[in-house]
Amino acid sequence: MFARIALIGIGLIGSSLAHVIRREGLAGETVVSTRSADTLKRAEELGLGDRYEADAATAVRDADLVIVSVPVGASGSVAKAIAGALKPGAILTDVGSTKRSVIDQMAPHVPQGVHFIPGHPIAGTERSGPDAGFADLFEGRWCILTPVDGTDEAAADRLRAFWEACGSRVDVMDADHHDRVLAIVSHLPHIIAYNIVGTADDLETVTKSEVIKYSASGFRDFTRLAASDPTMWRDVCLHNRDAILEMLARFSEDLSALQRAVRWGDGDKLFDLFTRTRAIRRSIIEAGQDTAEPDFGRHADHAPKG
Amino acid sequence: MFARIALIGIGLIGSSLAHVIRREGLAGETVVSTRSADTLKRAEELGLGDRYEADAATAVRDADLVIVSVPVGASGSVAKAIAGALKPGAILTDVGSTKRSVIDQMAPHVPQGVHFIPGHPIAGTERSGPDAGFADLFEGRWCILTPVDGTDEAAADRLRAFWEACGSRVDVMDADHHDRVLAIVSHLPHIIAYNIVGTADDLETVTKSEVIKYSASGFRDFTRLAASDPTMWRDVCLHNRDAILEMLARFSEDLSALQRAVRWGDGDKLFDLFTRTRAIRRSIIEAGQDTAEPDFGRHADHAPKG
Ligand SMILES: NC(=O)c1ccc[n+]([C@@H]2O[C@H](COP(=O)([O-])OP(=O)(O)OC[C@H]3O[C@@H](n4cnc5c(N)ncnc54)[C@H](OP(=O)(O)O)[C@@H]3O)[C@@H](O)[C@H]2O)c1
Ligand SMILES: NC(=O)c1ccc[n+]([C@@H]2O[C@H](COP(=O)([O-])OP(=O)(O)OC[C@H]3O[C@@H](n4cnc5c(N)ncnc54)[C@H](OP(=O)(O)O)[C@@H]3O)[C@@H](O)[C@H]2O)c1
Repeated sequence: MFARIALIGIGLIGSSLAHVIRREGLAGETVVSTRSADTLKRAEELGLGDRYEADAATAVRDADLVIVSVPVGASGSVAKAIAGALKPGAILTDVGSTKRSVIDQMAPHVPQGVHFIPGHPIAGTERSGPDAGFADLFEGRWCILTPVDGTDEAAADRLRAFWEACGSRVDVMDADHHDRVLAIVSHLPHIIAYNIVGTADDLETVTKSEVIKYSASGFRDFTRLAASDPTMWRDVCLHNRDAILEMLARFSEDLSALQRAVRWGDGDKLFDLFTRTRAIRRSIIEAGQDTAEPDFGRHADHAPKG
Repeated sequence: MFARIALIGIGLIGSSLAHVIRREGLAGETVVSTRSADTLKRAEELGLGDRYEADAATAVRDADLVIVSVPVGASGSVAKAIAGALKPGAILTDVGSTKRSVIDQMAPHVPQGVHFIPGHPIAGTERSGPDAGFADLFEGRWCILTPVDGTDEAAADRLRAFWEACGSRVDVMDADHHDRVLAIVSHLPHIIAYNIVGTADDLETVTKSEVIKYSASGFRDFTRLAASDPTMWRDVCLHNRDAILEMLARFSEDLSALQRAVRWGDGDKLFDLFTRTRAIRRSIIEAGQDTAEPDFGRHADHAPKG
């Protein structure tokens, strides 16, 4: 599909791309580059690419597709480092969780003749690093492209076909709309999860060991998101500030109303909200975006009894 | 272990008890009773008991162990209905998610000579009704007993042995402490989950179909809890008001600080919180209360591509 693909950044997303590119035969040659010597060495041990380059500019030379998979706060410096080495006609894309900020950081560095088409696969896990990737990550998930004005259609079609070959379905939207959608479906959930885990960690009246022992009654569902990579999530918060603050304000307003209903014992209001929210889960399951098994179908690795 | 066990209420918890009682041979005879004729009929079709009684008082007659598994708001009326028929020396327990309120509702009806020992298995799923139960529900999970003053020790030991035979580990604590612990590990998580799903449902700028399509980026983790039974959760909110309001206040205070950090771009503060919260998940996994598999080990039932 592409004679040469360069992967800049080889964490969860980069290494998942490496796996699926190999499995589906999407590249004649895959070149891997990452910031640290340790991660590059690990990528080589895992056999993620065909060639490994410490220098990102060297890695992108003659590549037809360059995929940048680094925390969004690093997009600008990576773009700057590789800009001069990009081949005319190459497609440059990214996988960052925010899009307006990435465009603002990367676009100014992109040379004439290179097709810069930002993207974001809506798929992930709480793990990070080159060992975390797997070829099925994108299977059945959506990938959102947020092309800038004047994007070459043939290039956009090639990138779409690439993501489809990775198992994804592809949507196209405006970067600002992307950022607002992701603020509610992803950024707010992570922030709320981090917050509640922090609150539980800080209580004086309930011990940490109690929180851990009894977590199966609900709390543990939040800890998965709250175990995600701190650097990635710091960057997301810093780079999608306005949309996140907007969603946080809505959430807090609704929470105040709920709090009032609890305080005044308004059972009907509580019952109404608690009924309305069931429909969404059903739709998510029907859309193939979650499992219908109770408890996510998970099976705990039970500790020995004692 | 008991010559006759009466199960009053045969939803998720009652039917799970029925399954494990049969599998482990914990009762000579299991008598099932529930409010509605439909549910009782379904329990019989599922073969959950040995005998089925529409009238709860008839069901508890001569039972050595009576387990009430109904929404906490119904505990008082159930206690009143069965009180006169309880056998002297019998153990009466419940499984309600709040304990102080259940004690206040049930204790006044309990006749002399009956051992009333409130309990709460820390195990559940988002499903409800007699079809939702399974014998393994309590396996490796904790069950909290909150005995009142002057509880007979031999009776408490028998109840503990019963829960251990169901696969649980047993803890004993004061009812008020239970309510505060559960407010943070279970009630607040459910309320927050219901709230965020409600917020997403109400937005004008992001469509419901977008929320559903892109939910794999975090949102879907909340929808499981928000699909739980509305009656049960309305009752929990009404019957553990003070502890829930206390935890909500703490949560909101922490969220305001986080919001401020986002607004002012305080990356260090965000990074610190996002780092600290990882340790708790690790401890929960080590304690056997969650799976270590990424994404809870879930495998979505993928919808056909299109
Ligand atoms: N995780 C998810 O669920 C998910 C989902 C969709 C999109 N995304 C987005 O995908 C991107 C990568 O996320 P990931 O989960 O793959 O992260 P990850 O597993 O933590 O890997 C990060 C990669 O970026 C490199 N990197 C980190 N800081 C850098 C810097 N300052 N300059 C240059 N390179 C740097 C790392 O290099 P070294 O290890 O060599 O330092 C590593 O190769 C992020 O923009 C994220 O928002 C993530
Ligand atoms: N679900 C959980 O995750 C979980 C975990 C731990 C503890 N608990 C506690 O366990 C108890 C039962 O929960 P569950 O999940 O088993 O509920 P469920 O599946 O909804 O079943 C509820 C049972 O209670 C009966 N019931 C409902 N309203 C009643 C009323 N007003 N008067 C008398 N009976 C009534 C129902 O009878 P009909 O169907 O015949 O109307 C049914 O038998 C609750 O107190 C809950 O707080 C739940």
